Amino acid sequence: MKSTRIVEKKQVFVNQWVTLEEKTVLFTEFSEPHQYYSLRLPDYVCVVARTVEGRFPLIRQYRPAVEAFTWEFPSGTIDPGETPAETARRELSEETGLRAEKLFNLGQYTTDVGRLDNAMHGFYAEGVVPLDQYQPEPGLSVKLATFEEIEAMITQGEFNFALHLTVWESFLRKVKRAGGDL
Amino acid sequence: MKSTRIVEKKQVFVNQWVTLEEKTVLFTEFSEPHQYYSLRLPDYVCVVARTVEGRFPLIRQYRPAVEAFTWEFPSGTIDPGETPAETARRELSEETGLRAEKLFNLGQYTTDVGRLDNAMHGFYAEGVVPLDQYQPEPGLSVKLATFEEIEAMITQGEFNFALHLTVWESFLRKVKRAGGDL
Repeated sequence: MKSTRIVEKKQVFVNQWVTLEEKTVLFTEFSEPHQYYSLRLPDYVCVVARTVEGRFPLIRQYRPAVEAFTWEFPSGTIDPGETPAETARRELSEETGLRAEKLFNLGQYTTDVGRLDNAMHGFYAEGVVPLDQYQPEPGLSVKLATFEEIEAMITQGEFNFALHLTVWESFLRKVKRAGGDL
Repeated sequence: MKSTRIVEKKQVFVNQWVTLEEKTVLFTEFSEPHQYYSLRLPDYVCVVARTVEGRFPLIRQYRPAVEAFTWEFPSGTIDPGETPAETARRELSEETGLRAEKLFNLGQYTTDVGRLDNAMHGFYAEGVVPLDQYQPEPGLSVKLATFEEIEAMITQGEFNFALHLTVWESFLRKVKRAGGDL
């Protein structure tokens, strides 16, 4: 197993966010080469935020990949030169008009180790407040949900986006059950 | 928002498991068309299994997409004609040599709504037992972990595969905290 290595990589540029990669892998010195295909993507952040009134912003938007409107937490890809925390603050403000004061790290995750190469960084933003000025993003609506509403959406399968559920569960483990006053 | 629609789709066949799709989307009747790129993938199952001795099989394998060895639960894509439960039993036996008696549904999830179109089906297999005959899959090793070991791997970030963590959390919600005797 130690000799497993990638012997060739080919890349098909799709656009600034997406590259299709073909990797040729030798699992041992004596095995046949195998081709694997995956997307190279920028790393990504997902933000569980809580307003001073105890509401959690959810995003509703159309997602072409699944051809449906989805429920998600505020999220987005890291721009060149940004730290994950900077992306978290930027995406939260762009998508919801809310400003994060304190940010807590909710961990770093692989997304789909079979097909995607990027990492997801989870954050919790405590006590977010409205920006003075805010221009909503077209095609995107925001719901300020209670804790109980989010839990009901998970139980009923209405909020079923695996990547973002992982960040919610990390919030429950690291903040809520660790003695937060939610 | 109601008028959001896909006006054109192009597909690049990559192999039997992967197709790259370009979808042209009109968000309103009056907006400019935008192109979105995603992978069309078969649906997928992930199985949290528990042996009669109370151990949970974990898979260690090399994943070319992330160029690393990963920890995962038994999992795999649904073959044509299979039900998700059949795939769960097949993948569990192929990857671990264990046979599932009772299977419990742990929910259906979207994976990455930005880039992937497939669904993940989670299952819990209670009281799995060794097959009479078993030929291990090359390049894949199995660890029979205790509940506490898995929780420690999650806390330490050693098991950080978001899709599979979602299924583990669903197991905790639906089985463990619902009064299972684990």
